[in-house]
Amino acid sequence: MTELEKKGALARKAAMALMTAGTELKNKALSEIAKSVSERKDEILSANALDIKEAEKAGMSKSLLDRLTLTGERIDGIVSSIDEVIELPDPIGEVLEKTVRPNGLEIEKLSVPLGVIGIIYEARPNVTVDATVLCLKAGNAVILRGGKEAFNSNLKLVSVMRDALEKAGLPRDCVAIVEDTSRQSATELMQLSDYLDVLIPRGGAGLIRSVVENSKVPVIETGVGVCHVYVDDAADLKKGAEIIFNAKCSRPSVCNAAETLLVAESVAEKFLPMAKARLDTKNVEIRGCERTAKILGPDVVPATEQDYRTEFGDYILAVKVVSGLNEAIDFVNEYGTKHSEAIVTENKEAAERFLAGVDAAAVYANASTRFTDGGEFGLGAEIGISTQKLHARGPMGLRQLSSCKYVVRGNGQVR
Amino acid sequence: MTELEKKGALARKAAMALMTAGTELKNKALSEIAKSVSERKDEILSANALDIKEAEKAGMSKSLLDRLTLTGERIDGIVSSIDEVIELPDPIGEVLEKTVRPNGLEIEKLSVPLGVIGIIYEARPNVTVDATVLCLKAGNAVILRGGKEAFNSNLKLVSVMRDALEKAGLPRDCVAIVEDTSRQSATELMQLSDYLDVLIPRGGAGLIRSVVENSKVPVIETGVGVCHVYVDDAADLKKGAEIIFNAKCSRPSVCNAAETLLVAESVAEKFLPMAKARLDTKNVEIRGCERTAKILGPDVVPATEQDYRTEFGDYILAVKVVSGLNEAIDFVNEYGTKHSEAIVTENKEAAERFLAGVDAAAVYANASTRFTDGGEFGLGAEIGISTQKLHARGPMGLRQLSSCKYVVRGNGQVR
Repeated sequence: MTELEKKGALARKAAMALMTAGTELKNKALSEIAKSVSERKDEILSANALDIKEAEKAGMSKSLLDRLTLTGERIDGIVSSIDEVIELPDPIGEVLEKTVRPNGLEIEKLSVPLGVIGIIYEARPNVTVDATVLCLKAGNAVILRGGKEAFNSNLKLVSVMRDALEKAGLPRDCVAIVEDTSRQSATELMQLSDYLDVLIPRGGAGLIRSVVENSKVPVIETGVGVCHVYVDDAADLKKGAEIIFNAKCSRPSVCNAAETLLVAESVAEKFLPMAKARLDTKNVEIRGCERTAKILGPDVVPATEQDYRTEFGDYILAVKVVSGLNEAIDFVNEYGTKHSEAIVTENKEAAERFLAGVDAAAVYANASTRFTDGGEFGLGAEIGISTQKLHARGPMGLRQLSSCKYVVRGNGQVR
Repeated sequence: MTELEKKGALARKAAMALMTAGTELKNKALSEIAKSVSERKDEILSANALDIKEAEKAGMSKSLLDRLTLTGERIDGIVSSIDEVIELPDPIGEVLEKTVRPNGLEIEKLSVPLGVIGIIYEARPNVTVDATVLCLKAGNAVILRGGKEAFNSNLKLVSVMRDALEKAGLPRDCVAIVEDTSRQSATELMQLSDYLDVLIPRGGAGLIRSVVENSKVPVIETGVGVCHVYVDDAADLKKGAEIIFNAKCSRPSVCNAAETLLVAESVAEKFLPMAKARLDTKNVEIRGCERTAKILGPDVVPATEQDYRTEFGDYILAVKVVSGLNEAIDFVNEYGTKHSEAIVTENKEAAERFLAGVDAAAVYANASTRFTDGGEFGLGAEIGISTQKLHARGPMGLRQLSSCKYVVRGNGQVR
């Protein structure tokens, strides 16, 4: 057995204990985790300081450094997120369906945990706790494999959580971390199908593609969003300008931010300058088609085919003038990543045709794509946004971290 | 583009048409398929005769030949199955959840088709129609890759279905078949992640394992069942004997048949001879542990470790005497395939502990494992029985062939 297989076997055993742990015990464990993270703040900050020092030496970019950094305030934020998860309803043990068959068999479809969840993610220590807490609340054990730059922080956080689990009377192995942060260890995790029930990659497009293509464990694909806003012939142009401004600029680095603006040719001459005026306030670079350039002038960078397939994650927007609704729907279905797609129009029929004809996790009429989020949808905390169609689609909350089983009670029935 | 990629692109386009096709149009297509299969029975039987001739020449076993063979009566059976699917409720377009957010956004969670479904299966021409019809009813396009021995039958059936789809006003490419039946083509299908939303393997353990390990397309794992019946200290032994007899012998080749009998030591001496008397009526070979052999005598073949992991699919039963409930639960969780597992006991507490502690798609108290079936569960026709935890678990009916999407209607909301 490799080290990782040993961890897998221990996690599987811990998952069995979690499977039959009730809400009270699970919440007690979460409370202990919150308490321990809070009480051992100094240890955690010291470990994080080691990571930051290394990262600075290695010349890590400012935005990545920011994601790596913990502060007293941020740890308080982590603790209060745990308290919020404690308040959420337990997704496990719910009778989803119930029937009594003509032969007297009583069949219940019951929500149960998934089992052992693997999570591969980047150097963001807050994810270490956030993801673990969600998995535990849904009765799952978890094996974490975080970015190597957060090694010391993660090791400390996991050790704090394991101590807290033990205090609460649950196995320490409900959470484990892969200590080897080489590429090899990620690959090994993808082969761990005897012990993992699902693998969730969180991070950039490259990481996710690699996991989807190489994993033998079932994967939930999260997060890559090349999202569009289409401004229709019948759009309220002022709404359109506000929506594309918000969808692009409110937080360009996240997956539900818009990357491409499509404009119906009948309104392009009027709308594009309005949109540009708003986008200029954030110095958004516009990469446009020929017609966009004709309307907006020399500021426009000519868009390449690749631009329309890129998640910029930055103040850059691809723009294309289209003939109208049909071309917009086809373009979105061809170039989108099935994440979040919006139409701006006052024409109800056009809106409904877009909503029905676009294949994506979330489709919007007259609202920003930025709303695709567990909290905004009223689902509570989320572990990610699924862009695949199996199991979960869109924001993944506690319910999406569960499975089901059929429980059948009889009195001797045979077939 | 390879031939298969071309088929994939055409299927993806057809899926877009199916996505917005209503119940009426889909049912019309199914009616046309039923009509055409019925009217063109002679063509279908001729094509099947070619396959049978080849298979006989190649020395195919009797049971496989039986599965390959179509008859007039069997085609009538296929047609009446189609009629049953027409009668089932449409799983698509249902509002699964609906909320209005404080900001006025109206959010609907809507059931939608999965998209394009790939199915890899053995030489069973009835599956060609049954699986296609279920996929179409749930609004999905389908790419079939059947066993090479059924090549002529499948080609003909698919051609009949494509003609019928066209008559109904839907694209012919809603169903396609991989004409290359080499191993290579199955591998290629597993790489078709740009065009397939899910791949469902139906067949033996080897086929399924290979697909799970090699597919880049999300897979739904179906069917391998090493199922147990545990006869507890507090069992009604007569019920126990009937249940293990039914679970083993009513149809040994199917996945929900039992492969292993576990018996609590306190009742083993009394129960095992009772069970054997029933099983002897079907000449079931017993492969037992040492204690089983001591009780039942020289008829018992010594069981190997491998026997406890084998889906015999035949009149062979592994037997093991265990100390009691805890050992039984541990054994089932270790050796089972998470399919269907049963306890026989009159002790309610023991039953509930087994039902909660065993991790499987279906868990039974005092009933035969043979009930794990879409029809028996009241779910209608099924495409297979999922033994994985993501997306679907247990019998997969029409609902399990669907996904969901969030449809959000606003009036200019930004975040």
